[in-house]
Amino acid sequence: MFSKNLNFVRRYFVMSLQEAKKIAARQAVDEHVQSGNLVGIGSGSTVIFAVERLAERVKKEDLKVQCVPTSFQARELVIKHQLPLTDLNINPLLDVCIDGADEVDSNLNLIKGGGGCLLQEKIVASCSKKLIIIADYTKNSSKLGDQYKKGIPIEVSPMVYVPIQKKIERLYGGKVELRMAVMKAGPVITDNGNFILDWKEFNQDHDWKKINTDLLLTPGIVETGLFIGMATKAYFGLKDGSIKKQE
Amino acid sequence: MFSKNLNFVRRYFVMSLQEAKKIAARQAVDEHVQSGNLVGIGSGSTVIFAVERLAERVKKEDLKVQCVPTSFQARELVIKHQLPLTDLNINPLLDVCIDGADEVDSNLNLIKGGGGCLLQEKIVASCSKKLIIIADYTKNSSKLGDQYKKGIPIEVSPMVYVPIQKKIERLYGGKVELRMAVMKAGPVITDNGNFILDWKEFNQDHDWKKINTDLLLTPGIVETGLFIGMATKAYFGLKDGSIKKQE
Repeated sequence: MFSKNLNFVRRYFVMSLQEAKKIAARQAVDEHVQSGNLVGIGSGSTVIFAVERLAERVKKEDLKVQCVPTSFQARELVIKHQLPLTDLNINPLLDVCIDGADEVDSNLNLIKGGGGCLLQEKIVASCSKKLIIIADYTKNSSKLGDQYKKGIPIEVSPMVYVPIQKKIERLYGGKVELRMAVMKAGPVITDNGNFILDWKEFNQDHDWKKINTDLLLTPGIVETGLFIGMATKAYFGLKDGSIKKQE
Repeated sequence: MFSKNLNFVRRYFVMSLQEAKKIAARQAVDEHVQSGNLVGIGSGSTVIFAVERLAERVKKEDLKVQCVPTSFQARELVIKHQLPLTDLNINPLLDVCIDGADEVDSNLNLIKGGGGCLLQEKIVASCSKKLIIIADYTKNSSKLGDQYKKGIPIEVSPMVYVPIQKKIERLYGGKVELRMAVMKAGPVITDNGNFILDWKEFNQDHDWKKINTDLLLTPGIVETGLFIGMATKAYFGLKDGSIKKQE
């Protein structure tokens, strides 16, 4: 009886999280994508709904878009929905990038890269006029680290992961772990052939802009999952079916 | 007769450049490597003489060293001379790194990466207590760009080389070219799977520290060949067989 109830609660909670992602994604696509746009397609579970909505609008409204994916997953999504693909070397400036986030703070700073696509995501976002974040309510925090406990992902060159691990722990505290793979032995290898360090238990009151700069000046750090001052607007789907916008 | 003389002049000039590299390399190794040291091994034609001298000292003086190479070439050199290999994940802090440079300015700022190993070279240098530069007199400039005309190498993610090319030309001027391969079709691919952009005809009066920071904050720029404030000392072999030291 108890376990039956628990399953019901679980199913309800999961459905409602999915619903929250969906309404945020659909509204962001409706408000920020126009015909003729070049659109960056983010990665993750929320972006699935955004691409679905894009495809719907292409069919219903004869919307014309070209898409630049930020990952293998995003590319597959675009292909599945028969949307036209392009890339940044053909089109260096996109109108909008729509992406999820692992956490969004009150200043619209983000942690991204739980899915390991931080480099491509940051590249595409940096080549877009607007970065629109879509997420469910669990990603909406006051400070980075309030809710997301998997840490800040840092993509590093394999030859130097130990020195970087030690340097971050020494200079900034917290715990820096090499992300291990599940379906192969050894560490996760990114699409760019690098390792990922996850920086956990960090001090939440860091000056993230300064930390991000210092990290990027460290030889061997290819990119960080800190997106500071990049997002234009965030859409959070809430439990009650409404949407909270932050900009 | 004329062509015979020209060949003689050419051979003399080449020999004397080689000689200049050799004396700088040998003196740097003698003054900066002690028994028990962990030594970063740079890349390029001058480093060949440094590794030769290291191997000589290992045999004659029973010097004990462990070496961390900065490239395939450096690794082959270390193996050829039967010196012990190690890496940064085993030994995160090296005593000294000995490397060449494409150009050295009056403030000991460097252009490196003509050989395409800028990322590994900067990583190893950044993990060393001292970076000792060895070079012939043609690398000794007042300002970057005085003598070296092949440009500042910038290692970039292949998906974004055109936007980065355009951005640098727009913001800083000059000409940014994708480095093309000779022994395969298409661009050079670095040991890390990236492309190299060569930034030529730049304004020589840039604030290189600021430019380097701005470039490294650009998503998709993995590393630059600007080594600013990193070198401890430079040894230049001169035409007359003497050595100029700069620190």
